[in-house]
Amino acid sequence: MTQSIFEQGLPQTPANHVALSPLTFIERSASVYPDYPAVVHGEIRRTWAETWQRCRRLASALEKHGILPGQAVAAMLPNVPAMFEAHFGVPLAGCVLNTLNIRLDAEAIAYMLEHGEAKAVLVDPEFAGVIEAAVERLDHKPLLIDVDDALFEGSARRIGELEYEALLAEGDPEYAYTLPKDEWQAISLNYTSGTTGKPKGVVYHHRGAYLNAVSNILEWAMPHHPVYLWTLPMFHCNGWCFPWTIAARAGVSVCLRRVDPKRIMDLIVDEGVSHFSGAPIVLNGLVNLPDEQKRDFDHPVKVTTAGAAPPASVIAGVEQLGIEVTHVYGLTEVYGPVTVCAWREAWDELPLEQRARIKARQGVRYHMLEALCVADPVTLEPVPKDGETIGEILMRGNNVMKGYLKNESATEQALDGGWYHTGDLAVWHPDGYLEIKDRSKDIIISGGENISTIEVEDAIYSHPAVEEAAVVAKPDEKWGETPCAFVKLKVGYGEVTEQEIIEHCREHLARFKVPKNVIFTELPKTSTGKIQKFVLREEARNQ
Amino acid sequence: MTQSIFEQGLPQTPANHVALSPLTFIERSASVYPDYPAVVHGEIRRTWAETWQRCRRLASALEKHGILPGQAVAAMLPNVPAMFEAHFGVPLAGCVLNTLNIRLDAEAIAYMLEHGEAKAVLVDPEFAGVIEAAVERLDHKPLLIDVDDALFEGSARRIGELEYEALLAEGDPEYAYTLPKDEWQAISLNYTSGTTGKPKGVVYHHRGAYLNAVSNILEWAMPHHPVYLWTLPMFHCNGWCFPWTIAARAGVSVCLRRVDPKRIMDLIVDEGVSHFSGAPIVLNGLVNLPDEQKRDFDHPVKVTTAGAAPPASVIAGVEQLGIEVTHVYGLTEVYGPVTVCAWREAWDELPLEQRARIKARQGVRYHMLEALCVADPVTLEPVPKDGETIGEILMRGNNVMKGYLKNESATEQALDGGWYHTGDLAVWHPDGYLEIKDRSKDIIISGGENISTIEVEDAIYSHPAVEEAAVVAKPDEKWGETPCAFVKLKVGYGEVTEQEIIEHCREHLARFKVPKNVIFTELPKTSTGKIQKFVLREEARNQ
Repeated sequence: MTQSIFEQGLPQTPANHVALSPLTFIERSASVYPDYPAVVHGEIRRTWAETWQRCRRLASALEKHGILPGQAVAAMLPNVPAMFEAHFGVPLAGCVLNTLNIRLDAEAIAYMLEHGEAKAVLVDPEFAGVIEAAVERLDHKPLLIDVDDALFEGSARRIGELEYEALLAEGDPEYAYTLPKDEWQAISLNYTSGTTGKPKGVVYHHRGAYLNAVSNILEWAMPHHPVYLWTLPMFHCNGWCFPWTIAARAGVSVCLRRVDPKRIMDLIVDEGVSHFSGAPIVLNGLVNLPDEQKRDFDHPVKVTTAGAAPPASVIAGVEQLGIEVTHVYGLTEVYGPVTVCAWREAWDELPLEQRARIKARQGVRYHMLEALCVADPVTLEPVPKDGETIGEILMRGNNVMKGYLKNESATEQALDGGWYHTGDLAVWHPDGYLEIKDRSKDIIISGGENISTIEVEDAIYSHPAVEEAAVVAKPDEKWGETPCAFVKLKVGYGEVTEQEIIEHCREHLARFKVPKNVIFTELPKTSTGKIQKFVLREEARNQ
Repeated sequence: MTQSIFEQGLPQTPANHVALSPLTFIERSASVYPDYPAVVHGEIRRTWAETWQRCRRLASALEKHGILPGQAVAAMLPNVPAMFEAHFGVPLAGCVLNTLNIRLDAEAIAYMLEHGEAKAVLVDPEFAGVIEAAVERLDHKPLLIDVDDALFEGSARRIGELEYEALLAEGDPEYAYTLPKDEWQAISLNYTSGTTGKPKGVVYHHRGAYLNAVSNILEWAMPHHPVYLWTLPMFHCNGWCFPWTIAARAGVSVCLRRVDPKRIMDLIVDEGVSHFSGAPIVLNGLVNLPDEQKRDFDHPVKVTTAGAAPPASVIAGVEQLGIEVTHVYGLTEVYGPVTVCAWREAWDELPLEQRARIKARQGVRYHMLEALCVADPVTLEPVPKDGETIGEILMRGNNVMKGYLKNESATEQALDGGWYHTGDLAVWHPDGYLEIKDRSKDIIISGGENISTIEVEDAIYSHPAVEEAAVVAKPDEKWGETPCAFVKLKVGYGEVTEQEIIEHCREHLARFKVPKNVIFTELPKTSTGKIQKFVLREEARNQ
């Protein structure tokens, strides 16, 4: 076959082919809106010009300290300005930003620093002890940089060679950075929370970060100059790529050291926050604020929530506060959220219960996730769109990770057959929206029937006394497995018996799905607030 | 240097690397919003599901007729549904869409069909004669497809082998298309209007079309489901990539065979149009509508305008109608607009004259144009940001064309030194916004001083009797060149003399910039409405 005339003599040149990188977003905002606010943190207010200079200083100073392009720089930071700056300054030096989960212990952190070979660590005083203990375990000590913060309420202790502001002072505000030549170049490293086994290091590249940052804008129809409140940890999938999203929109990053519902409410009003993101528990905190801490506001506020389907009562409560909820879903392996329960006007008229049920679905693909499918995990054949047949969620696109660091077999397995295998089980509704039923490893098989633990949990949650619930498989001689429920009751609700919960479930579930056991207890959680079902499975086994 | 650990064992796979293509946008909208309106044209109302099926039918039918991937399919169509569909159906078959300027004559069209080697042409009845005459000149006759249109008011005459609906009927609505494997693959071919010399065939690729379509959303902060009125010809830079933009937003395309201010006003109100684009002359038409044809509406309506700086009176008039104006700038070589006069809130408070002057600037780069510069065209050194020094506008990014078809030397010249050379001359203001002063070939050099013809024209336009003005160089023994003005006066304004215009210019311009001659006449224009300065230069020479 002769080559098309449209593919001859028309090569890529430096004029018409430029590597996609989210660093071009901050470059643009600093040049177009230099005097617009970029970062707010307590008394600190910095413009885009200032923030851009600080990021270039950071890159320049890292270079001066001998850190080379392609090496990792870690950050053990809450949502403070330095964490935002690291999302630009570190890749400006050609380095890879390794955001560390601040809730982890020294052993886990040591593993990550060693595995990712971090050459420097930015350390918040709150985590000085953990980092000190972690670094003690390492053969190659990284450069430690203390990041002071006036809003840290504990007693600050420095463990590093120098403080962040001193580091910046060494750097050149006009640093002549080079953008990546190849958009496949790594930009960041995020370790999975690893409920079982060793954490895996998920590598993101510039192309994916660029595209998912833009897709956030598209899904949310985000206007110019949003005021974004950092309720979502930036260490979590690079804050779902929102540092780069906010740079593209020339918005404001309102920092927040920790999730505190009263402070969130105050910032919404006092800083005019227009957007934020967070798990349903963040929303729950707002809904449950004492009335005297709730405040009126009349500017539009939007929240994206993920991690679990928000219960109807929470959606109703948040919407009553004047906050519009969008439900998204994603994983560390896909740069944060990549599906959205895209809203349809016709649903506005439905009663709340029904709206909440619709909104609880994980929905459809992001504009920039190229394909999304619920399929048989072995044959990769799509399941019927019947809202009943369970399959695994598969994804394909440029916002699927580059792979797991130093782990080719896990990478190959995760990306096998042209799809990323999420390990999440879902049904596909007739309207093309998917709804998660379970993690592959969580589903219960009882008498040959699949039982979605999420479905059972939903039934338990609908009991007014229940604050938290988790259902796992309990080995059973007759049935293979049966559902076993762990329940945390609301404080001050009074006595509730196991039988009462079981009766309640019978009203809502097919008989084979009803838990055989209900255990009242606190639920064990990972550092990111996920319930540790593997712990509960162990407990269920021993009941 | 050892390779970074982040670049080892992490290759591109079909799961994590997918070619960017705007075809994924229509795929998504048809799947998420199948029942939402996509196309409106007179009595025709089609959903996204229907439109998507028609596009797949078109691709399938082209294949059945032996048209191969990599070959061109031309369209001689006004803004009718088939033109919108061609933007998807043609590339779905792997083909390249060659949109033809419907105002051109048979000779020009014949040149393009021959040069682009089009294998098929979609023909509107209004242009049957032109296409028939053009095809007569060709050795290799393309397949002609008549596209009937109930809204065409002339007497329809078919010249093709079959009609468009019959073609679609042959096609498979479930056609198993393949998306491009390489995002550098050509998607369309647009000939420059060619005020001098042979038209050049500008080739666009999927990557650029994808990115510029998205950038349109970002600049305009375009919400979900806009109602877009097609005042801008789709044959012009693929309608600035808006067919793909509207597909990404799951919006409505309200078609329009020709620009008719009354009809535009009616569609804004009756169809709830929220967005449209067009030259200032389109806006002018709306402003000058008789009062009884103006209608009230209270939904937000936005327009992007380009091609010339909109005069203050037009901006004021349009804004009084309730339409918000955004000024953008681009060229065929860069997929339509790639700069925008990004608005700053602080400017809202300025008096109209000043706002108009600010808005008339071409502004700053699109999010997805990677670099924009005003520079010395020889050394490529940026000019100072002083608002005075004139340089050439240079651009770099993924929305710079793939190149000129079968014209390597012109491509190399246009993309020389890592920049696309626009040939437009501008100043760079201290705030980083650029403002065009002239085309390179239009500028007048008088006594060694540069005179911007645009600046002189602005002065002439500010005279209330002037409807249109153009200024060109006239050879002069003493000065080298002097400005010569051609002016069309408003009907019914009464007598205005050459001396009066010259006096008026003296009040607004430095003496050496004042035209030495003023000629009252109709202005010759290209098929896209651009004033043909080369004709005027010839006339000036003969004065």
